[in-house]
Amino acid sequence: MLRLPTGHDSLVTTDFTLEGIHFRRERHPPESVGHRCLTRGLSDIAAMGGKPVAAFLSLALPHDLAQAWVRRFARGLIALAEKYGVTLAGGDTAESPSGILADIIVVGTVPEGKAILRSGAQPGDRIYVSGELGGSAAAIMQMRTRPKKKLNQQDYPRHFYPQPRIALGRILRERCWATAMIDTSDGLSTDLAHICEESRVGAELDSERIPCARIGKPPREVDLDLALHGGEDYELLFTARPSQRIPSQIAGVTVTSIGRITRSKKILLLKASGATQPLAPRGWEHFRK
Amino acid sequence: MLRLPTGHDSLVTTDFTLEGIHFRRERHPPESVGHRCLTRGLSDIAAMGGKPVAAFLSLALPHDLAQAWVRRFARGLIALAEKYGVTLAGGDTAESPSGILADIIVVGTVPEGKAILRSGAQPGDRIYVSGELGGSAAAIMQMRTRPKKKLNQQDYPRHFYPQPRIALGRILRERCWATAMIDTSDGLSTDLAHICEESRVGAELDSERIPCARIGKPPREVDLDLALHGGEDYELLFTARPSQRIPSQIAGVTVTSIGRITRSKKILLLKASGATQPLAPRGWEHFRK
Repeated sequence: MLRLPTGHDSLVTTDFTLEGIHFRRERHPPESVGHRCLTRGLSDIAAMGGKPVAAFLSLALPHDLAQAWVRRFARGLIALAEKYGVTLAGGDTAESPSGILADIIVVGTVPEGKAILRSGAQPGDRIYVSGELGGSAAAIMQMRTRPKKKLNQQDYPRHFYPQPRIALGRILRERCWATAMIDTSDGLSTDLAHICEESRVGAELDSERIPCARIGKPPREVDLDLALHGGEDYELLFTARPSQRIPSQIAGVTVTSIGRITRSKKILLLKASGATQPLAPRGWEHFRK
Repeated sequence: MLRLPTGHDSLVTTDFTLEGIHFRRERHPPESVGHRCLTRGLSDIAAMGGKPVAAFLSLALPHDLAQAWVRRFARGLIALAEKYGVTLAGGDTAESPSGILADIIVVGTVPEGKAILRSGAQPGDRIYVSGELGGSAAAIMQMRTRPKKKLNQQDYPRHFYPQPRIALGRILRERCWATAMIDTSDGLSTDLAHICEESRVGAELDSERIPCARIGKPPREVDLDLALHGGEDYELLFTARPSQRIPSQIAGVTVTSIGRITRSKKILLLKASGATQPLAPRGWEHFRK
């Protein structure tokens, strides 16, 4: 039961975290699974410029799962909830027919009529993204290509412990800077397609401006393909009027201009050579084989 | 995004519907699965005396599932949503690692501070239940013992198309009749134990007063064990002060007095012979083998 502030709209998000799709028990510490589970919901609230208030967890567990796993999962989830002042307010438990299944519900608030939607982008708007892209997918690539090698969690923070961009989302909403926004949970190409579809516009991205994540030691940039299509970075992708100056750092996070919204309804990638190619939403394959 | 009325508390419920646990694809028509999925959430709102406002659905599907299944599932869910004026306001879709997985979130409202909780029962209160118990479990028993025989859905309406007791819950809340309430999703013995635990009290049930469901043609009563322990009837189980007269019919639903709350913290079953036995919460085994 929640008492929400008056004069506000309520935001409700729901996101699955499924073993074998979003994580693998042998590759992800339970604390990371709990943290990433809640990040999915908090990031959805951030993408609307909202303030997260409460979380609800539905959890279905195989009957032979060790209690220690659940304790460590809860520890990861609760640590993140406390960091953002979110109350874990209820949920449901069930027996799972197979694998660990979690669904996180986050309730947030935003001043009435002020939520940033996916549908507000207009031709001429500039496209921006926070942070770096492809870092989370790079961790999954490593797990796939080197199944025996244990990844160093510190080398892949955006994969194991992604921080939702709550403060950035709030500032963009308060200052009315963003015309449309989404988080990069499915990958830049897919999430940009969502904005374009709901805004009935197209887009052009400048390939050399895409902020490819730097990983490992010494740091090296991930391939452009991972930055374009890899998901679960939980950065914010937004549009702003061309006349609006957007700082290159907001709330401690780098913000990069990567392209512009067009009237054409096509999504194109402009190469440094001047060549242009269509950018298909390749979606996000998670751990699918 | 929801605009909720001021002066109200928000209620949020989340409930899994998992293939192999809550339904079997070969035994339940998709429309029934969709209907039962939403009933789980609506019934939780009814049990707090609330008004359901919006539903959100997280759905994970095996990649080889026929589109027709999803269409028919949605039809069953949406028909029930429309009946209760509930908006299907969003959700999440994912690929399932195995089987059909659904999580329904229902958001409801209740006037500030007026939600009926599980924690309000006091020694001396009478215990009431709506409708009949064990009808849903009887259908599952039939499926187990006669796996080849197709059940006639009309013979088991509380199993295939249970109606949430929204109107009854609202009246009990408006008239301040119920001191504590829960819905019988897990079965009488388990759900009564939840009320007793949260209210720090015990209970005595009169075995000959338990309303055992009548099923089939000619109708015959289900065994007392099914009425005591079978789940998913989605009736309302509530307590009221002994001085409060409770009608035997409310909002068209029969309401039966089945026992009383005690100080002892034990839950006892009183037989017609005068003998007494402890009533353990046997829980609800669904389709587990």
